Amino acid sequence: MSGSRRLGIDVGGTKCLGVILDATGEVVEQQRRATPKGPDAIIATIAELARSMGPWASIGIGVPGLVTLDGVVRASPNLVDITDFRVRSLLSDELGVEVHVGNDGTCAAAAEWKAGAARGLDDFVMVTLGTGIGGGVVAGGSLIRGANGFTGEIGHMVVDPAGPPCPCGRSGCWERYASGSGLARLAREAAVGRRLERVVMLAGGDAEHVRGENVQAAAREGDADALQVIDLFGRWVALGLVNLANILDPAAFVLGGGLAASADLYLGPIQKWFTELLYAPHLRPHPTLVFARLGEHAGAVGAALLPELQ
Amino acid sequence: MSGSRRLGIDVGGTKCLGVILDATGEVVEQQRRATPKGPDAIIATIAELARSMGPWASIGIGVPGLVTLDGVVRASPNLVDITDFRVRSLLSDELGVEVHVGNDGTCAAAAEWKAGAARGLDDFVMVTLGTGIGGGVVAGGSLIRGANGFTGEIGHMVVDPAGPPCPCGRSGCWERYASGSGLARLAREAAVGRRLERVVMLAGGDAEHVRGENVQAAAREGDADALQVIDLFGRWVALGLVNLANILDPAAFVLGGGLAASADLYLGPIQKWFTELLYAPHLRPHPTLVFARLGEHAGAVGAALLPELQ
Repeated sequence: MSGSRRLGIDVGGTKCLGVILDATGEVVEQQRRATPKGPDAIIATIAELARSMGPWASIGIGVPGLVTLDGVVRASPNLVDITDFRVRSLLSDELGVEVHVGNDGTCAAAAEWKAGAARGLDDFVMVTLGTGIGGGVVAGGSLIRGANGFTGEIGHMVVDPAGPPCPCGRSGCWERYASGSGLARLAREAAVGRRLERVVMLAGGDAEHVRGENVQAAAREGDADALQVIDLFGRWVALGLVNLANILDPAAFVLGGGLAASADLYLGPIQKWFTELLYAPHLRPHPTLVFARLGEHAGAVGAALLPELQ
Repeated sequence: MSGSRRLGIDVGGTKCLGVILDATGEVVEQQRRATPKGPDAIIATIAELARSMGPWASIGIGVPGLVTLDGVVRASPNLVDITDFRVRSLLSDELGVEVHVGNDGTCAAAAEWKAGAARGLDDFVMVTLGTGIGGGVVAGGSLIRGANGFTGEIGHMVVDPAGPPCPCGRSGCWERYASGSGLARLAREAAVGRRLERVVMLAGGDAEHVRGENVQAAAREGDADALQVIDLFGRWVALGLVNLANILDPAAFVLGGGLAASADLYLGPIQKWFTELLYAPHLRPHPTLVFARLGEHAGAVGAALLPELQ
């Protein structure tokens, strides 16, 4: 039985999700654990989760941050106290089997490619719009890892050097505008001068506490100010997508992450601005914008697929 | 003899360059023609050049602009009166052989990959800094063409939406800052308010006529104002390279085009700013910045290599 069962574990900032794929790629089992703090505790938790989900034939792990081809997490903004965390070798020693490790954006791309919205495509970019922006690249029919395994840090593409500072140390990174936290920031800026009243009310009356969800809720009520913020947000998303289209000419963008859950609100503005901003829009086929299909499973499913993609 | 002779022709805005590669990839023959205006005249010129360089076993053509996988030039800013120019089929009919056509940036990448500065690399980005910025991408050990053949339009990555307008119809494209015309523009802006005296003098006394060459000449004399413009220019080049590094994680950037001829002036500032702008620079190997080796032959050599790369 273990021959067809592939284990994938997505290590997130708050929880670890494990899934078992059967021979057809379906998720036939899943388990969760809270993500503890510190490398030793994380390895122990992953190992316990892996054992409890056995037997399986292969194991892949998805981790946020800069993950080397040899499965070392160089730095990870979402995991506490992590630098040079040798996930692959520590876990391989612990479990006594070969372990494959990849960045979570790369895993999400693998999952949507083999089992989701990008099946059959040779060229697409995975864009996960969450608190930040992550990504993964499939080009020329291959999952691209890059020279070090760091491909897909698309959220740190600078789109305005005079823009707001980013935790990465630079300014005006795409994720300062086009992520969940970017949406909230755009809303807080728009709220200056007593505009955006309904959104601020939904945030409890303090413009400084506005979150993306408040903008979404007001927009769903038809609030014009909120819809304007959504439009501006769509423009920033589109700007980055157009940059990626100019660089990589993908057949599609697969949009995932937390914001994909409210896809209906964003798709129109993003598509409008994408056409507006694309070079020679009338002379070329446009990449399709599709939403991810695997939802919160994407990272774990992609992790389970890593062994056969490497 | 024709079995080992591969013909490549680079169609530029002003001239067409043909080269013959021998079995080892060496350029053993070259010829030039002026590029005429209009599609019919261009096809006639390429066909005449190809016949005069025969016999050969294969033929590839490099063309600027958006070139489809089927060898149709959708739009080309450097060729007059060109839209939907079916280079491949017209030339194939005319010569009675299979013809391969690619974008000139893609061709330059192919040339540096197989016969130049990027030999043996699986992941690199070709960046041609000329009047504008062109490019090509090798990732995961393949020359990336994209869904339509348009990969590598890196000069139109927007790096400042409030920046100067670009002929492509948008604003703040990377090539408005980091190309030859970008350097001139940065210099003209710096010349406002009677600064940059030496550079303006070299331009004949009119700040509006400053060209990149004037900045270079003054910088070589040690002029501090000119060196400051070179430093600013290096920062913009580095900003775009860092964006590409975040997206694609290449092992190297190969810098080509007209500005590569003055590499010694730029390399220091570009490298300094690249390190400054890269995310987590101490935690990762940096891509190497190398200058192209094939010079003005790159496009034609890469065109000659297209048949074996497709």
